[in-house]
Amino acid sequence: MGRIVLGLAYDGSDWHGWQTQPDRHTLQDALQDALARFLAQAAVPTVCAGRTDTGVHALQQVVHLDTAAERRDESWVRGLNALLPPSVRVQWARPVAADFHARFDARARTYLYLLHSAPVRSPILRGRAGWVHDALDGDAMRAAAGLLLGQHDFSAFRSSQCQARSPVRTLQQLDIQRQGDFFIFRFCANAFLHHMVRNLMGCLLMVGRGRRPPGWVGEVLAGADRRRAAATFMADGLYLAHVAYPHAPGLPLETAAQAMRRHMGIPLSW
Amino acid sequence: MGRIVLGLAYDGSDWHGWQTQPDRHTLQDALQDALARFLAQAAVPTVCAGRTDTGVHALQQVVHLDTAAERRDESWVRGLNALLPPSVRVQWARPVAADFHARFDARARTYLYLLHSAPVRSPILRGRAGWVHDALDGDAMRAAAGLLLGQHDFSAFRSSQCQARSPVRTLQQLDIQRQGDFFIFRFCANAFLHHMVRNLMGCLLMVGRGRRPPGWVGEVLAGADRRRAAATFMADGLYLAHVAYPHAPGLPLETAAQAMRRHMGIPLSW
Repeated sequence: MGRIVLGLAYDGSDWHGWQTQPDRHTLQDALQDALARFLAQAAVPTVCAGRTDTGVHALQQVVHLDTAAERRDESWVRGLNALLPPSVRVQWARPVAADFHARFDARARTYLYLLHSAPVRSPILRGRAGWVHDALDGDAMRAAAGLLLGQHDFSAFRSSQCQARSPVRTLQQLDIQRQGDFFIFRFCANAFLHHMVRNLMGCLLMVGRGRRPPGWVGEVLAGADRRRAAATFMADGLYLAHVAYPHAPGLPLETAAQAMRRHMGIPLSW
Repeated sequence: MGRIVLGLAYDGSDWHGWQTQPDRHTLQDALQDALARFLAQAAVPTVCAGRTDTGVHALQQVVHLDTAAERRDESWVRGLNALLPPSVRVQWARPVAADFHARFDARARTYLYLLHSAPVRSPILRGRAGWVHDALDGDAMRAAAGLLLGQHDFSAFRSSQCQARSPVRTLQQLDIQRQGDFFIFRFCANAFLHHMVRNLMGCLLMVGRGRRPPGWVGEVLAGADRRRAAATFMADGLYLAHVAYPHAPGLPLETAAQAMRRHMGIPLSW
């Protein structure tokens, strides 16, 4: 048996998230079905770095699996892509040591949120970008973002369905960059709670629209009460963009900004 | 009666082109259905600047219609968008002189083609960008593009269904710009024949891939024979991006490059 790692990109619009479900319309089911056909095996379990929710996209999802089959890296890519639906594409494949673990070895996940700020919603990136009608105050949002950095109890930004044992996470980066009418938000943490990025987005946008002062976000965080936070913001613009494996060299991962530029042509200065 | 001009953006992926058809699944039908409901009239004919084909998008389509109804500009935008499917959005509305004509007054149309050049097709801009597996030689494509500029008989690049009386068109611009792994092609002409941009793309890509020398494109043009040209390239990355009305000041049109940046976040140096 050997362990294989796959790098995946997907448009999550039409999927019920990553994790396998009885209805089978999930990204994990799609990948495992393709693997079973490719390898002519009954079932091929997989483990991913970050279980994305319904409607959430990935520029760089990382998945591992074990198999006795031997294939060239290029053969994994071409063979699986021929069997996957067009909204999912294997970008690369690499053999790794048998003790590599896509989930437990990941030290940090980076999500990007692509937000369009314009009076009329553009139909062109519908499903690929979030949208707000209002003009946004980037500096106010950055001031609020600064209050969220570090290790905190993020209960205020956790959905009621969250199954994590602890609400404590370390938010390492929360940066906001403008590109024309778009704002791109970068969230990097050791791990995220269920709906955490979308709930943080909802609160940051309350500040960006001028409905709350930046300090309100710090109060919501300290209150640790989901009912005090803003509504969960739409999933449309949310991308799992990078996973950090400091002890697994050799995986062809790009930075989150490089991945967004490569998939969408949007250059970021990060 | 007054004449109103609308600026439209749409994702053409799921539509059978602009022009009304018996199956009614066209952009013109969608707009006219929304207009009929908005104005409570039986039928509201419209005239557009450029009748886009199946799967072709618009960043700035321009449409005129006549009505006795009086509405504020903002009311046209909000009212119609509430009735249109999300893949179509009215960006602006303006009253114009009764002799303005969206089609006959247009002196030039600009199409952009967004092309992704990468070993694996990205699922993120699927339907919004064309794709080639191969690396492309931008300079060779630019040399070929130079041979197409000016007034020519474009029969070699015209589909067999083209209903235009004359195959002569004046190609004013054909520029190619790189942005990361994307190439953006800008085609500006007084008007275009059916499938002309997609047929030109097919030939430029034969040169970009190194399968034909740049001069071959000039030979195809001079031959005026569709059978000598390359296959029609996919519609996915094709956008009607600008229409020039030199005698109708006051329409809030942007350049093609500004429109792409606003809708997609991709900055162009044009």
